[in-house]
Amino acid sequence: MLQHIRIVLVQTFHPGNIGAAARAMKTMGLTELVLVNPRLFPDEEATRLAAGAADVLESARVVSSLDEAVNDCVQVVGASARLRSLPLPHFDEPDAMAADVIQNAQTAPVALVFGRERSGLTNDEIRCCTHQVSIPANPDYGILNLSQAVQILAYEVHRAWRKGEASGFAYQRPLDATPPSREQFMHFQSHLGRLMQQSGFLTQPHARTEEQLQALFARAQPSRKELSLLRGLLSAFESHLPEQ
Amino acid sequence: MLQHIRIVLVQTFHPGNIGAAARAMKTMGLTELVLVNPRLFPDEEATRLAAGAADVLESARVVSSLDEAVNDCVQVVGASARLRSLPLPHFDEPDAMAADVIQNAQTAPVALVFGRERSGLTNDEIRCCTHQVSIPANPDYGILNLSQAVQILAYEVHRAWRKGEASGFAYQRPLDATPPSREQFMHFQSHLGRLMQQSGFLTQPHARTEEQLQALFARAQPSRKELSLLRGLLSAFESHLPEQ
Repeated sequence: MLQHIRIVLVQTFHPGNIGAAARAMKTMGLTELVLVNPRLFPDEEATRLAAGAADVLESARVVSSLDEAVNDCVQVVGASARLRSLPLPHFDEPDAMAADVIQNAQTAPVALVFGRERSGLTNDEIRCCTHQVSIPANPDYGILNLSQAVQILAYEVHRAWRKGEASGFAYQRPLDATPPSREQFMHFQSHLGRLMQQSGFLTQPHARTEEQLQALFARAQPSRKELSLLRGLLSAFESHLPEQ
Repeated sequence: MLQHIRIVLVQTFHPGNIGAAARAMKTMGLTELVLVNPRLFPDEEATRLAAGAADVLESARVVSSLDEAVNDCVQVVGASARLRSLPLPHFDEPDAMAADVIQNAQTAPVALVFGRERSGLTNDEIRCCTHQVSIPANPDYGILNLSQAVQILAYEVHRAWRKGEASGFAYQRPLDATPPSREQFMHFQSHLGRLMQQSGFLTQPHARTEEQLQALFARAQPSRKELSLLRGLLSAFESHLPEQ
């Protein structure tokens, strides 16, 4: 589905922006790049800033009109810093745009179109679009660098995709973060409860105090490893307690 | 409240990344930049890439340790491409992080900390943090450029802020997009209904057909200007109809 999403850059002036945009795309799982009349491409600066996304640059399609770039798309979203008065349906929020794009991209290509660094898209190019989107920003200084705008919209598309049920996206987990089993946790709690009494902290079974401390440890959500460290600490204390 | 949010860059290697980060911050309404031992700063490259955010660079604080940069903060979020096994509370999703940060930033400074381009943050620096966040990305290529990571997290913070009731954030609207009043819209609908009959399209009042076409125009949400154009068109047709 992400392969149905096409990033189209129209007449980009700085090759570095093309490279940075390619990198931005790839980090968000997008690979389809189309360049409409780029001023300079291929270029060393593009390759340098693409970093590990040189493959995206290599497979980029270069065309001479926006029409050619998007004519097979079912949805064409023009990204624009300044809203035009041409009344295309407009997304105020990139997240709403992304949800719509992901929906359409299930079955057919969808394009996100970015204009020139200084002047954006022409009115004719806006007419090739079905929707407009702006990135809400500081009213005093709201013009993002082109590759930053690509990064944000690609990020929102990835976000809409990964939050969908079918995406199968898995968050990174640190190696040590496996939670303990319920049984392991219960063993810890009863070990703790036993030592609360053996140590003289609780002179008689006091359910509320036991519960409060047990709730604290539950809330801390110790990993399996941490629980093991705690058990070790309790055992170290235990070894100094008088025989029961 | 956004002024309570501090962006901290630790030992940035490329001055261009500092400049691009400053621009990214400013587009999202953030102004507080702190640099911990930047390799080269100030620098022409930083100034060039900052574009209209030179003021953010000028007011940036330069310090020699992360401690100094964040010791007055109530929350310190370390942004990390690779999760460490140091078990800081971790946000899987930048939007959850941003909601929390905006909450805390109501009353006190909060820092977002970004590490070195190649090696991120050291374990000692992670210990200065209260939370970690990662930007979910392509598992095959998930390392964003530093200034892109700043842009995304700044964007999420701005998003959490603007969606809050108190923000007063106003979306850009194109000049011609004022909606018509209910009265103006009703005038149009009755004009349309009248001409459906006068033209012979409806030989007798046919409520369903009238409603269907009226619903279409309602759904189109014409602006005041567009409605005026439609009225003009209807009047042009009307002028050719036989007298009633």
